[in-house]
Amino acid sequence: MPLRVNEARLWASLMASAEIGPGEAGGLARLALGDADKAMRDRFGEWCSDAGLALRVDAAGNMFARYPGREALPPVLVGSHLDTQITGGRFDGILGVLAGLECVRRLAEEGIVPRRPIEVVNWTNEEGARFSPPMMASAVFAGLQDLAWLYARTDASGRTVEAELRRIGYLGAAPVGFPIDAYFELHIEQGPELDARGQKVGIVTGGYTALGMNLRFVGETAHTGPTPMDRRRDAAVAAAHLAIAVNEIGWQYAPLGKSTTSRIDLWPNLPGLLSARADVTFDVRHPDRATAAAMFERGRMAAAAAAAKARCTVDELETWRFGDEVFDAELIEGLAAAAAALDIEPVMMLSQAGHDAYYVSRVAPTAMLFCPCKDGITHNEAESCSLDDIVPAANVLLNALVARADRA
Amino acid sequence: MPLRVNEARLWASLMASAEIGPGEAGGLARLALGDADKAMRDRFGEWCSDAGLALRVDAAGNMFARYPGREALPPVLVGSHLDTQITGGRFDGILGVLAGLECVRRLAEEGIVPRRPIEVVNWTNEEGARFSPPMMASAVFAGLQDLAWLYARTDASGRTVEAELRRIGYLGAAPVGFPIDAYFELHIEQGPELDARGQKVGIVTGGYTALGMNLRFVGETAHTGPTPMDRRRDAAVAAAHLAIAVNEIGWQYAPLGKSTTSRIDLWPNLPGLLSARADVTFDVRHPDRATAAAMFERGRMAAAAAAAKARCTVDELETWRFGDEVFDAELIEGLAAAAAALDIEPVMMLSQAGHDAYYVSRVAPTAMLFCPCKDGITHNEAESCSLDDIVPAANVLLNALVARADRA
Repeated sequence: MPLRVNEARLWASLMASAEIGPGEAGGLARLALGDADKAMRDRFGEWCSDAGLALRVDAAGNMFARYPGREALPPVLVGSHLDTQITGGRFDGILGVLAGLECVRRLAEEGIVPRRPIEVVNWTNEEGARFSPPMMASAVFAGLQDLAWLYARTDASGRTVEAELRRIGYLGAAPVGFPIDAYFELHIEQGPELDARGQKVGIVTGGYTALGMNLRFVGETAHTGPTPMDRRRDAAVAAAHLAIAVNEIGWQYAPLGKSTTSRIDLWPNLPGLLSARADVTFDVRHPDRATAAAMFERGRMAAAAAAAKARCTVDELETWRFGDEVFDAELIEGLAAAAAALDIEPVMMLSQAGHDAYYVSRVAPTAMLFCPCKDGITHNEAESCSLDDIVPAANVLLNALVARADRA
Repeated sequence: MPLRVNEARLWASLMASAEIGPGEAGGLARLALGDADKAMRDRFGEWCSDAGLALRVDAAGNMFARYPGREALPPVLVGSHLDTQITGGRFDGILGVLAGLECVRRLAEEGIVPRRPIEVVNWTNEEGARFSPPMMASAVFAGLQDLAWLYARTDASGRTVEAELRRIGYLGAAPVGFPIDAYFELHIEQGPELDARGQKVGIVTGGYTALGMNLRFVGETAHTGPTPMDRRRDAAVAAAHLAIAVNEIGWQYAPLGKSTTSRIDLWPNLPGLLSARADVTFDVRHPDRATAAAMFERGRMAAAAAAAKARCTVDELETWRFGDEVFDAELIEGLAAAAAALDIEPVMMLSQAGHDAYYVSRVAPTAMLFCPCKDGITHNEAESCSLDDIVPAANVLLNALVARADRA
């Protein structure tokens, strides 16, 4: 007989979270390491304490709430993140942490103690909305970056991650990274597929490859009035050419491919002045790694062409790649088995967004579950899930988690 | 025998100004009503006082240094502005004020007292770089805007013009606007024509018509990863389409026409997010008023088309027009006569940039003089003039000014 989460309690936790750091339009604006993030971390800590879980904070601010096992083995991790975008929803990330908490609350109620400990994790700054890049603390956990790098990242006002972790009281003592048995992450899909198909559970087998770049066009500022068109080196024009080209790349590879120019910072960006600089961020995504690489290469060529058209230069400042991980077959089987026991037919699918699970998968067996969100809208305060959207996947998570933690 | 300015003293004044609010690359970053603007105003006030001129500050912060005439008639005004762009040069505006000061210094030395008083004016915030729009204080002087409007304008940090005028001690008691006999403004050309032709003096007969617009594209933010291309309403894409179209309009009307997208503010403007909003500023300029209007209409249509392509909406927030004024024929004749007496053959030309003279011309006879600047580069710290570039026009100004002030 499969276990089931306490639906009302899970929903109540989500709605309590939705009060902390509200946005302007019903969502959340709970940027990493801000006051609201601190308040939510504190609340999560209280809930863990109420549930009898020992809380540990590592030097990257990651929070681990431990439900003990029968043996001193590496724990099974379950969780996600409590920070949001500036235009965040109430479920992105939060669901994964609070569903993890609900799982161990149920185990405690049932008196079930699996062979291995279970730890509910809240990763610091998954979103990257305030401190770039996203998923920075799981990157350190996985050994892909070091703590000094994380500490030195700054927000727009120049405050560092280290200073802000210290300020909010989450600069923990525990080392970052330790042996784990496995990692599960439940997340809203952040795409329209499950919702459109009326399906409630997606098992994520891996990710779309995402490739991104920060680049800078350099032109020359001058007066917009008297400066002849043929003397101009206007970085705004270069940025516009690139943004159009990036958008066209997405359409050429649609429906699977997507590409976006998400950031344009002109300088001086004032009426009357040609732009001497344009800093641009673009990314491309595709389920096929080679195709994503081809799209990215077209974006790179488009940047060079855009610079040439506007008589500017272009410098690639930073590039990144994530999402081409393949999740663990055994964990995926475990999720499928749990779904079957609950009479749920899951959809096997790829994630199109970034997740801490990608980085964790570099060091431990990892898998993800998706539940639907309305119309696939996310990173938008209108992001919406019903309890019916959430519960089936939470139940699959609960049973797969116990089975994994309790295996021989 | 025509009068001549003291070249060394004029240059020394310009170079002393160039020390106050220096930029990063040899120019000036003396934004209106900042500490450097205050320091420059104070210095100008000291120079006026040393020259025996009575200084008056009006309620818009405009400074008037009075050289008395033989009769109590409306004064002849001469001047420009001491504020600069964030990437400003050492001559734009400043030359007009300090050449005006040099003119009355020479008159004082020669003991020449014309029939009418002469007042050297420094207009507050010509540039509009910190507080939009440009030329705001001369607009109030000319009765085109009221003081309440000027006081309420804010900079990016929310500080008002009124508060900043008070903070730097330039919220004067004198009413804004009074009868004047005429207004002269000497300015660098801010275009390449005089420099390219090796000519030293331009008499400005009027301006290029400049039409501009602030507009907002509204789309919808969403996650850049999973959101299919055909579901997007990405305001960044709309802004890029418009910027390309505006640039093309400029090329179609080249060499006389120019058009520019000088500002793009995306929101949220973060990696991983489609843009829900894009605020854009564009302008068009052409010597022919009807052609400028046609260019502007094409820009407006391009904005609608750009919005449609990106499935966004567009709102015109503000439009403006300036520069289609025609300067006073009698003053132009006076400048030409002064040039002839100095054996200078002036170029009759139109200004392509905005100037306080445009607004003042609505209420009094007005004319402008141009001198060359190197390669026409301006609104750029590389803006450069030699003394040889400046002196001929300053001498024309001096003689035309005296003739006007002394006329029957």
